[in-house]
Amino acid sequence: MSSTVSPLAPKHVPDLPAIAGVRLATGAAGIKYKGRTDVLLALFDKGTTVAGVLTRSKCPSAPVEWCRAKLKGGRARALVVNSGNANAFTGKTGREAVTFTARLAAEAADCRPAEVFLASTGVIGEPLKAQAFEGVLDALAREASAGRFHDAAKAIMTTDTFPKVATAQVKLGDATVTINGIAKGAGMIAPDMATMLSFVFTDAPIAAPALQAIVSAAVVDTLNAVTVDGDTSTSDTLIAFATGTAKGAPTVARANDPKLRDFRKAFEGVLANLAEQIARDGEGARKLVEVVVEGATSKASARRIARSIANSPLVKTAIAGEDANWGRVVMAVGKAGEPADRDRLSIWFGDTRVAHKGARDPAYDEKAVSNYMKSPEISLRVSLGMGKGRDRILTCDLTKEYVAINGDYRS
Amino acid sequence: MSSTVSPLAPKHVPDLPAIAGVRLATGAAGIKYKGRTDVLLALFDKGTTVAGVLTRSKCPSAPVEWCRAKLKGGRARALVVNSGNANAFTGKTGREAVTFTARLAAEAADCRPAEVFLASTGVIGEPLKAQAFEGVLDALAREASAGRFHDAAKAIMTTDTFPKVATAQVKLGDATVTINGIAKGAGMIAPDMATMLSFVFTDAPIAAPALQAIVSAAVVDTLNAVTVDGDTSTSDTLIAFATGTAKGAPTVARANDPKLRDFRKAFEGVLANLAEQIARDGEGARKLVEVVVEGATSKASARRIARSIANSPLVKTAIAGEDANWGRVVMAVGKAGEPADRDRLSIWFGDTRVAHKGARDPAYDEKAVSNYMKSPEISLRVSLGMGKGRDRILTCDLTKEYVAINGDYRS
Repeated sequence: MSSTVSPLAPKHVPDLPAIAGVRLATGAAGIKYKGRTDVLLALFDKGTTVAGVLTRSKCPSAPVEWCRAKLKGGRARALVVNSGNANAFTGKTGREAVTFTARLAAEAADCRPAEVFLASTGVIGEPLKAQAFEGVLDALAREASAGRFHDAAKAIMTTDTFPKVATAQVKLGDATVTINGIAKGAGMIAPDMATMLSFVFTDAPIAAPALQAIVSAAVVDTLNAVTVDGDTSTSDTLIAFATGTAKGAPTVARANDPKLRDFRKAFEGVLANLAEQIARDGEGARKLVEVVVEGATSKASARRIARSIANSPLVKTAIAGEDANWGRVVMAVGKAGEPADRDRLSIWFGDTRVAHKGARDPAYDEKAVSNYMKSPEISLRVSLGMGKGRDRILTCDLTKEYVAINGDYRS
Repeated sequence: MSSTVSPLAPKHVPDLPAIAGVRLATGAAGIKYKGRTDVLLALFDKGTTVAGVLTRSKCPSAPVEWCRAKLKGGRARALVVNSGNANAFTGKTGREAVTFTARLAAEAADCRPAEVFLASTGVIGEPLKAQAFEGVLDALAREASAGRFHDAAKAIMTTDTFPKVATAQVKLGDATVTINGIAKGAGMIAPDMATMLSFVFTDAPIAAPALQAIVSAAVVDTLNAVTVDGDTSTSDTLIAFATGTAKGAPTVARANDPKLRDFRKAFEGVLANLAEQIARDGEGARKLVEVVVEGATSKASARRIARSIANSPLVKTAIAGEDANWGRVVMAVGKAGEPADRDRLSIWFGDTRVAHKGARDPAYDEKAVSNYMKSPEISLRVSLGMGKGRDRILTCDLTKEYVAINGDYRS
């Protein structure tokens, strides 16, 4: 946990209303450091449905494997998240730690272990001493209470400099339902069909398969469209819990139910908000960078080009140096391997077109662009002129602080 | 050009013998700065064959497109290389600059423009003022002389901190032939089916198609197996020139001629030497890093995993911080998307096995490894236990100096 808050942290932090059927508690289990808050317990009322998306890493953590198996059940009664240890690449010991933790939480929550979901974040490869949870989880279960989402977001931080929360309220039938989301993540961020640790809670009554369809669709342009360093984590986890406790809300069984239209939109909005906060808290970040690629042959192609730009160390260091070095953007388009034609390519920094049809824009005023590069939020747009594919990725700049954070900290 | 030489620069710099049929001269054309050596002219005797490999970037530079077209002719009489401007993404102006330069060089060398090869390195997107070569190339042609390979290597440097040269002598039939290579490159280094600027000169009499086969094969495990920052250049160029002047050497027409066995090996050795020097001069580098992946399902799969490790900012910053953070190696294997099984994975730093079969090696002595991480050359080996695929990539660490160099310098 860094002592200085990112200068890109949101100015306004919303209050998160309580959600009936969700109780939260945080505590210190001494996973890595004594006396530091490092464990979150969430308890859900009976009837809560669950859906999620997990990392596509070929070396997933033990809790990721646990969640992948238990998501099939579609029911949740408890969530345990710890920071300080990722329980990844921990072999048999890791699987035992997961089973043990789930059993402890099931006893505390009076449910079956299969209704317990787990996530761990922190160092990879160190055994997680799950005995540390003994006595802690049942104490937390006794003190768990409604609201407290801010405390929950704080408990799961590692190199994050601020807790990440988002909320929305939306009509479902005649009822108003709430969607609260929390997330952590500042480095090892390049989710693909997954995300860093992120949890969404709602009182909407939505069946698990429908909730799964909403989650899978919403992640594409939100948490999967953010990158800090192109390094995909072993532990990426997004889980959504729906308690169904919203008064008067109709129960929704199918994802294509038209009643879900506003809910889908609001749900995606919460994820987009969390995703942007992750980019804003990128390790060492001083600039939030939006990369828009349009005119590609498809959305998938636009995404690969946008990723190539957003992950290029040369583009990211140029932005850190406040240099509108669009030649490096050309390089990143060229190396992506996607259909592109140099002589149709145009590039904008903010509203200024710096390159047009394969050469420097003759009208381009370098002074205006240099001035624009000083702002904390940079938008970079590439038009390929090949087709209608469009995509947008959020990232941040690459600074000396990123190197310092990751050269000094065993994460 | 940096004022401090990389601490990883080779201790011994070989003398490069003259090659009959090759004359070199360097000069100052004032491309970017007045009075700085920024142009190299090489002249070749009649009968010189040529072969090359060029960037696969979709946004190649104008000289890359010129060379790709002219390589088909198989004959070379002149090579012009300038630093200070890449003539990339310069549109029609760029193509005109190339044609103009080739014509000037052809007049100076008394040959056809199609026998002139061109390469440019430096800033992308600025028009190259080829008029600057007027009067310069014919003066250089008059003063060109044998030897002077060190001067040639110096003339093509940009952010390089030392000139890169390599040489070998080998038997061809009963004759001894010489292979001299020069290269530049320190950033925007991730050649794939190509390389940064690199030129090889030999007096062996080898027909162009045979030379092309040798070049294409040799590049795979040498210049294509090095990465500094994962950023593939618009200008990657490797060209080999064979004057055929070696006394008594048999003329070789076919690449599979058994007489070429030793030559192939020596040629690949020269490229491997240059590739290692490029990694040693990686921008801001303080550690040379070898990544070996074995037990993959194929060589191609091993290469993709090795690249994933070698390009991971988290692995590279950990090495800069002298931290044997093998958890990040697990992450990089996991994100590569290649066949891998966490529970068969083993990892070594130097001779110490730190992880074995999906968990920390219980015998692993962290102190010994910490000590090893202080050395300037780090070897990192991953065994997947899946098959027989093996590959090796050279890279360097990621330091604050890389960020400083690329945030401050418009390259």
